Amino acid sequence: MALSPYTQIFEASVLNVLPTMTMTSVSRCGDCVVKDGNLVTGIVSGIIGMAGPKHHASMTLSFEREAILGIFATMLGEHVETINDEILDAVGEFTNIICGDVKRRLSEAGTIIEMATPLVVFGADVRIRDRVTKPTTVIPFETPSGKFFVETNLGV
Amino acid sequence: MALSPYTQIFEASVLNVLPTMTMTSVSRCGDCVVKDGNLVTGIVSGIIGMAGPKHHASMTLSFEREAILGIFATMLGEHVETINDEILDAVGEFTNIICGDVKRRLSEAGTIIEMATPLVVFGADVRIRDRVTKPTTVIPFETPSGKFFVETNLGV
Repeated sequence: MALSPYTQIFEASVLNVLPTMTMTSVSRCGDCVVKDGNLVTGIVSGIIGMAGPKHHASMTLSFEREAILGIFATMLGEHVETINDEILDAVGEFTNIICGDVKRRLSEAGTIIEMATPLVVFGADVRIRDRVTKPTTVIPFETPSGKFFVETNLGV
Repeated sequence: MALSPYTQIFEASVLNVLPTMTMTSVSRCGDCVVKDGNLVTGIVSGIIGMAGPKHHASMTLSFEREAILGIFATMLGEHVETINDEILDAVGEFTNIICGDVKRRLSEAGTIIEMATPLVVFGADVRIRDRVTKPTTVIPFETPSGKFFVETNLGV
């Protein structure tokens, strides 16, 4: 199966938004892959629906435990041990702002989409399934404390 | 905190839709409660966003493991051991049709809402957080094989 043609847009939005919002260095790591199954990659994930005249899709921003705790330790200037509601809300806000940046870039490229509001899911071994049957591309990123992933089934 | 004023509408929609769709007897059991925290009640849950001029909310239809396996055993006429993608898709469809029935009843009562598309989350000890800060009411139901719950933060 083919990767999403929009991976470069998602990558640009993540690198535009997250380092500034989190005061953390972020870089792409490794190749994009097409996901097999519906197990969420990280332990805490923001999910946002996207819909347009020709598209119905979602974007997921999913952090490994150590990655999100490290990001919060940097932002707060102190050690963080627990993924609490404040962190869940921030993951929702990161997802929302990255998706807004994606929306703007897509619009500039002639593709109009609208965004829903984000939902945040926290747990190990969670499966998430939506109605979109297109393949999901996983884009990996790394921070000094761990990895996170953007997943999207936005296709053509 | 007060219960959602719309609990009777959600109850009526569940009892209108699910027994017919699943060929399973369904009844209300116990009192509605206002939820403390954001841990999902069941193991497999369909979630759907609802938005209108005066409302921004969601509805969750969450099944205990034995409840959804029992419903599927009845529907298929054979023993079912595993919560597979077919079951996840069906939970999304139950959620969608119940929410559509809620939407119709609300419209008849003068409240206009639009529905997003359902997302299905499967896992134990999952926390789900959205942007709605209103209290979530949990409405319990029982089937011959187990319980399920409708949760909503649709308020006034």
